[in-house]
Amino acid sequence: MNEFCHTGEDTRSEIDLLEDIGLDESVETAIPTLGAAKVPSPLIQTEQGHFVSDDNRVLVNVSHRCFEAALKAGRTPPSFELAGPRRHIYFDPTKLRCAIVTAGGLCPGINDVIRAIVLALYHGYGVRSTFGIRYGLRGFIPEYGLPVMELTPERVERIHEYGGTILGSSRGHQPIEGIVDALERMHIGVLFLIGGDGTFRAGAKVVEEIQRRQLKISVVAIPKTIDNDIYLVFKTFGFDTAVQMACEAIRSAHTEAVGAPNGIGLVKLMGRHSGFIAATATNALREVNFCLIPEADFVLEGEGGLLQAVEQRIRQRGHAVVVVAEGAGQRYVRGDKEERDASGNIKLGDIGVFLRDRFRAHFAEVGLEVNLRYIDPSYIIRSVPANVDDSLYCANLGQNAVHAAMAGKTGLMVSHWNGRYVHVPIKEAIKRRKRINLNSRFWMSVLESTGQFNLAVHPAETP
Amino acid sequence: MNEFCHTGEDTRSEIDLLEDIGLDESVETAIPTLGAAKVPSPLIQTEQGHFVSDDNRVLVNVSHRCFEAALKAGRTPPSFELAGPRRHIYFDPTKLRCAIVTAGGLCPGINDVIRAIVLALYHGYGVRSTFGIRYGLRGFIPEYGLPVMELTPERVERIHEYGGTILGSSRGHQPIEGIVDALERMHIGVLFLIGGDGTFRAGAKVVEEIQRRQLKISVVAIPKTIDNDIYLVFKTFGFDTAVQMACEAIRSAHTEAVGAPNGIGLVKLMGRHSGFIAATATNALREVNFCLIPEADFVLEGEGGLLQAVEQRIRQRGHAVVVVAEGAGQRYVRGDKEERDASGNIKLGDIGVFLRDRFRAHFAEVGLEVNLRYIDPSYIIRSVPANVDDSLYCANLGQNAVHAAMAGKTGLMVSHWNGRYVHVPIKEAIKRRKRINLNSRFWMSVLESTGQFNLAVHPAETP
Amino acid sequence: MNEFCHTGEDTRSEIDLLEDIGLDESVETAIPTLGAAKVPSPLIQTEQGHFVSDDNRVLVNVSHRCFEAALKAGRTPPSFELAGPRRHIYFDPTKLRCAIVTAGGLCPGINDVIRAIVLALYHGYGVRSTFGIRYGLRGFIPEYGLPVMELTPERVERIHEYGGTILGSSRGHQPIEGIVDALERMHIGVLFLIGGDGTFRAGAKVVEEIQRRQLKISVVAIPKTIDNDIYLVFKTFGFDTAVQMACEAIRSAHTEAVGAPNGIGLVKLMGRHSGFIAATATNALREVNFCLIPEADFVLEGEGGLLQAVEQRIRQRGHAVVVVAEGAGQRYVRGDKEERDASGNIKLGDIGVFLRDRFRAHFAEVGLEVNLRYIDPSYIIRSVPANVDDSLYCANLGQNAVHAAMAGKTGLMVSHWNGRYVHVPIKEAIKRRKRINLNSRFWMSVLESTGQFNLAVHPAETP
Amino acid sequence: MNEFCHTGEDTRSEIDLLEDIGLDESVETAIPTLGAAKVPSPLIQTEQGHFVSDDNRVLVNVSHRCFEAALKAGRTPPSFELAGPRRHIYFDPTKLRCAIVTAGGLCPGINDVIRAIVLALYHGYGVRSTFGIRYGLRGFIPEYGLPVMELTPERVERIHEYGGTILGSSRGHQPIEGIVDALERMHIGVLFLIGGDGTFRAGAKVVEEIQRRQLKISVVAIPKTIDNDIYLVFKTFGFDTAVQMACEAIRSAHTEAVGAPNGIGLVKLMGRHSGFIAATATNALREVNFCLIPEADFVLEGEGGLLQAVEQRIRQRGHAVVVVAEGAGQRYVRGDKEERDASGNIKLGDIGVFLRDRFRAHFAEVGLEVNLRYIDPSYIIRSVPANVDDSLYCANLGQNAVHAAMAGKTGLMVSHWNGRYVHVPIKEAIKRRKRINLNSRFWMSVLESTGQFNLAVHPAETP
Repeated sequence: MNEFCHTGEDTRSEIDLLEDIGLDESVETAIPTLGAAKVPSPLIQTEQGHFVSDDNRVLVNVSHRCFEAALKAGRTPPSFELAGPRRHIYFDPTKLRCAIVTAGGLCPGINDVIRAIVLALYHGYGVRSTFGIRYGLRGFIPEYGLPVMELTPERVERIHEYGGTILGSSRGHQPIEGIVDALERMHIGVLFLIGGDGTFRAGAKVVEEIQRRQLKISVVAIPKTIDNDIYLVFKTFGFDTAVQMACEAIRSAHTEAVGAPNGIGLVKLMGRHSGFIAATATNALREVNFCLIPEADFVLEGEGGLLQAVEQRIRQRGHAVVVVAEGAGQRYVRGDKEERDASGNIKLGDIGVFLRDRFRAHFAEVGLEVNLRYIDPSYIIRSVPANVDDSLYCANLGQNAVHAAMAGKTGLMVSHWNGRYVHVPIKEAIKRRKRINLNSRFWMSVLESTGQFNLAVHPAETP
Repeated sequence: MNEFCHTGEDTRSEIDLLEDIGLDESVETAIPTLGAAKVPSPLIQTEQGHFVSDDNRVLVNVSHRCFEAALKAGRTPPSFELAGPRRHIYFDPTKLRCAIVTAGGLCPGINDVIRAIVLALYHGYGVRSTFGIRYGLRGFIPEYGLPVMELTPERVERIHEYGGTILGSSRGHQPIEGIVDALERMHIGVLFLIGGDGTFRAGAKVVEEIQRRQLKISVVAIPKTIDNDIYLVFKTFGFDTAVQMACEAIRSAHTEAVGAPNGIGLVKLMGRHSGFIAATATNALREVNFCLIPEADFVLEGEGGLLQAVEQRIRQRGHAVVVVAEGAGQRYVRGDKEERDASGNIKLGDIGVFLRDRFRAHFAEVGLEVNLRYIDPSYIIRSVPANVDDSLYCANLGQNAVHAAMAGKTGLMVSHWNGRYVHVPIKEAIKRRKRINLNSRFWMSVLESTGQFNLAVHPAETP
Repeated sequence: MNEFCHTGEDTRSEIDLLEDIGLDESVETAIPTLGAAKVPSPLIQTEQGHFVSDDNRVLVNVSHRCFEAALKAGRTPPSFELAGPRRHIYFDPTKLRCAIVTAGGLCPGINDVIRAIVLALYHGYGVRSTFGIRYGLRGFIPEYGLPVMELTPERVERIHEYGGTILGSSRGHQPIEGIVDALERMHIGVLFLIGGDGTFRAGAKVVEEIQRRQLKISVVAIPKTIDNDIYLVFKTFGFDTAVQMACEAIRSAHTEAVGAPNGIGLVKLMGRHSGFIAATATNALREVNFCLIPEADFVLEGEGGLLQAVEQRIRQRGHAVVVVAEGAGQRYVRGDKEERDASGNIKLGDIGVFLRDRFRAHFAEVGLEVNLRYIDPSYIIRSVPANVDDSLYCANLGQNAVHAAMAGKTGLMVSHWNGRYVHVPIKEAIKRRKRINLNSRFWMSVLESTGQFNLAVHPAETP
Repeated sequence: MNEFCHTGEDTRSEIDLLEDIGLDESVETAIPTLGAAKVPSPLIQTEQGHFVSDDNRVLVNVSHRCFEAALKAGRTPPSFELAGPRRHIYFDPTKLRCAIVTAGGLCPGINDVIRAIVLALYHGYGVRSTFGIRYGLRGFIPEYGLPVMELTPERVERIHEYGGTILGSSRGHQPIEGIVDALERMHIGVLFLIGGDGTFRAGAKVVEEIQRRQLKISVVAIPKTIDNDIYLVFKTFGFDTAVQMACEAIRSAHTEAVGAPNGIGLVKLMGRHSGFIAATATNALREVNFCLIPEADFVLEGEGGLLQAVEQRIRQRGHAVVVVAEGAGQRYVRGDKEERDASGNIKLGDIGVFLRDRFRAHFAEVGLEVNLRYIDPSYIIRSVPANVDDSLYCANLGQNAVHAAMAGKTGLMVSHWNGRYVHVPIKEAIKRRKRINLNSRFWMSVLESTGQFNLAVHPAETP
């Protein structure tokens, strides 16, 4: 295992370099394979060729300081395998059968990824049988009686123009054995897993079960989360589109706030554990006055508390825009016993409705007429088609997933890191959650943009 | 007073002709004036001229049957004065001072109307003093201490690119005497009133008070309502844009519904008394399965009730999209005592949240797993900038309001009727509310599109 | 034949009322039928019913003055049959076979119309066989060997989300006998014709040939033209969307013009004979300085000529935005012999490129540095999907076309007139072209918005 | 000077790693300064602080192989200084006067950058005097008589919502002495230069002249080019938005191509020397059949030539979409003597019009009826407002430019590299142009997407 770069005394500057990722641990980078890749790739090549070899690696950390530290210590700093087509592949394309499954919540771009996988398999490698599993992992389990969907180039031709997933999705655990049984029964050689944290945990167990049974099935994951909170990915697909939609909601809140005497525009955005959507939209628009995220949990009452701060802003400026990520302020809305959803996620209390009511009560109490408009764009943000940027990103993720799978690699997640597509072991990706580093310049930008330097925050809880 | 066309036995066909307006009464069409218009218009003219005279009138009803009935009876059917510039005007532009006020909720295009008024006054007629009253009618009342905003061509140059109103708005009654006092104090000759039903009622009283005081102040109203529920206007400005935004929300609900096993997409849209946004968006998209509006109040339980109907749809098709206007189903959410907002409107219970919870309870009860996504786009719908259609419409409304005012007309609303811009007495416009005619082909289209023919409805209440 | 309203001396006011249509002739309104409609309509009905009878008619002219003139003369003014479902229909839906053809240039919303026809036939009336003819009228002619496309609800489900036409289109004449032969051979009962002026002329001949052969085939036309120049239709579908796209192009031209010293933004827009797109976009944006249309042909050189006027504007204000419809200024670019395209339309010279070069030469001559940016958005304007407004409009046109056809009506165009859907005889619609009335308030608005009152125009040519 | 990573024999893999950048030389990374930074930064800080020190550096190359090569050789691989606020600054903010100039062609996001600079100077550092230079570098030269524009937070509040530049821009050389004279005369301490290659060359000379005169004036550049062809920047601002607009044009071309018999959609896009827009849009949409860029100059005639290839595609598939960057195929359209524009750029021949005519001639010759639609979106692509992604990027570039300038750094360009904001010496940035590496996976993706493997290309010319 490689030690990740630790340079000693001045950790602050490391933090600066790694800001919005929060990377501060050692990282394992070796990718498992099903066996030697001996089949010549059928990909058409230009004269000079453009194949990638496993020796092409991308440094995990681009800090020069890391390089120097490693140089001194004689250590090799960690690097990820570069994604891309290999000169030799593991599977015989003419006999290969593939499956694609989408699990968890919706996110712009899922159909783009499905389409890219199908087209790359079909046109690039000549794979003729690709199946879509319906409604997430439950699609593998016979009890649900869900037929598979055959995925041909014709079927996926225009699906990238729609939001959602043509396969359907679901949350919730399914028996690992049942999933692998289904893969065996269907003679699947490659499973493409488009999902988030929970799905990846199931995926890691599927890989283990496959290994236990000594099957030759590759599992390649593509990280999907509207919250952008998967570790070891710079930015997840659909995030750009989500921020764009969030900006529209905030712009409306701002318009409403300035359009009424003492107007308050309150917007709730997605972000269960990580406030990337709220913070990024705040930075993009620069018209938010309070940005509340799970990583920096706000104090509601008293000196420096949110109520006081909003009141002060209203008295001074006549309007205020407040953005809250759904996972923020949970201490105020969590009931006594924790409820969990089908995926095992704790059910969040509704902080948006809570703040709306609490604001109204507070201003009634202090006798200040305010006009509060509450906006909860919710599913609108995640159900739209991907914008051009995300489309392109999804197409690249899908293609690289196919290249990795054809080369016989498994247990990996296709990721974008330091501007390159790379392979990251699924096991590493689920070790922790990506969250906003409160010491990063990214978060500092939010503070500068909102001016909320004096807003009191609770000491961090561990997620 | 003219009798509106009544042809006797076959009222159904009349209804067909007047479908989405619900016009079925006599209508008064005479417009009050401040006095004789003797000042030659300063508008530049083409050789042939393009002035409009008060004799140019537009029939209220385009039904041929009305014509025949009138012919038989020797009566003259009612017609509205055509809007447009008059050859002679009443005010001396060089000495005139105008005021613009925006009241009630936001709506796409308010800034477009303000801009069009300012530009037409300034460039068309040479009026140099136009003032914006801040935050609705309260801007007239000295106690609020709200300074006016001077409105020059420079100030309004690009305001049409933003949603909301640069003047701010507010709800609530203000003393009529106080408003007229302020007009006198400011030496205002024309007041442009951009508002809805409630504002128009105040406007009608302001006109009376002006007449009582024998002042020479014109009051010209431009109808503004996101709900499209003002009587004697085909379509209010901003409605197109609102429907466009509503369609985006519904499209998301549909994507979510088909993306999950037994998915239900539930969307709440604006529409306190009239369901035009919900019904029009339903017709535009043709992917809604239940469209619930205040005019056809749905039965919740039992045979033909909503719960049963949605359950049936889920069992048969695996997903459902339900759109509910905020004013529908109020019998289920109204508390014991009616609360009213600042404008005197009854506070509505939240039918969206009610249905969300009631659906969840029902399906838990019958033991059917459903995935319900609730979308309430609320203020997003009314805070966006106007689309091109609405921009053009707003520009025409604003220009025609200026032409009417300069000609010394008062107590009127600028309207669009049978494809022409016309003058309608404010007093007529507030006589009743425009609602969806359940016998119209418009509503029939909704039924055909959704297939909800068997959904039980309560007998109509009077609004 | 009804005489259209002529009131004598004061024609100017008539012009005002009819402004953007240019309606000034008598109009024939009777619709041919294939025979008595005796089959009860299978459409589901509400209790009160919502069927339309042929007695429901919409006045052609809404001017009150017309009414009075008719009253005096004891004449009946012309009125169009109201569109909509009839209680009895002519065809037996279970045995009916229909065909849809799209001809001429693209236009936003064609797929929406196709979809609406297919859905109304299938779900409303139970018609099971609808065929799409490929690539316009040539699809009927065996020599081209073009197979038909079967149109089912599944096939058309999402086609309204794409621009263009799924059927393909083409220009050019095809033998009328060959078309009717094909209809006979295919046992088609209804032909839906989505096309423009040229297609309608062919359609009228097809109707004649059908009558000559005493066939029971209905021909129902839906007017399609990006130029909005079809007579007796208020606005053609796709026009709103086209104006929206045109506005984007003009906005870019304006940005470029103000972004450079002495910047000139020159935009060429569609509009062969009628400048509706150019004029409407000019009115919507109010940042155009010169709007050149075929109806008011500009003088290029000398006093009051375009070159001088643009030079003056540049010298005074430092930038200028010029919009030219493709059919304007043809006298300057027409070659010696007229070329015609496949539809028989005269090939236009490229006035945009001509003006670009002529402007450059002129300013080089007078020694004034200018920065000219030429924008020709061309096909971008007509290839995009319809916006929500147009979608809704197309859906209504398609449905009403089906209602008319099922009732056994033929030789008609579904139109929107005075705010209602009506039936207009095809023969009337092709009598002349709709053009901008230079005496209308619509054109006056353009002059006011641009300030181009002093721009010299050539005396009108007859189109 | 650091040697950039050369690992010897296997250069191909290096190429893979550096794909779309084409970085293959040594690079100088030291940033000049005006003097020691001793003034404590007035930026508000969180407890832990978030300042960046000059020791924080980002590796130029993230290839692990480079690391190993350096390790072996005992060399230090090159790294760029990390951008961001420094704990101590050079200028006294209360006395500092800044200037901003925008030069060259338009690009989405210029106003965003201007706004970010002004807001960061004003609110972050308390700088009260910032001036906008009008119409590019000529704004410095007294002969032009162009007044400066004072840039306050109020002035720039909403400018990011518009395309273009509020300052205006121009091309062309201006005397370096004149520029520095103006800076001296205006007592400017920092000049922010928003421009491209040509402007940067002038900027480098301005820096030299400032050094020669021993002035304390910082020059900080922000790279602006719609073509994305500036060396040592991953992606220039506005590029995302431009690609989005390009995609709309291509989508229209595709719609037209499939909508007509043997339809050919031909789109000309920007890209004088580098085809990034054409290639990226091709990858994003995956419906382009031929993508022609300057880096891979196509052969027109004969075996494997474009004409033959397009003909073949038309015969087989019935339609084709061709995208050509404006700088491609210049050998076919270049006249005898080279003309140059005001910036000294060679005037390009119009390859789009050439191909349109050549295609028409070719298919007339071979007797194949085709329907060719030519789309040249030109300035529409660069004049629109920035999308959310670009807005955010521009805001970060502007802020980091301010941080660099306040710290007394000069002669640098703010860049985005390997996912971080860094300082790059202007001198390095102008050493060469960034072009598409034909051996990169990026270009391979284009080939795979279009299938144009067999299209013959001319041997590369040096740009």
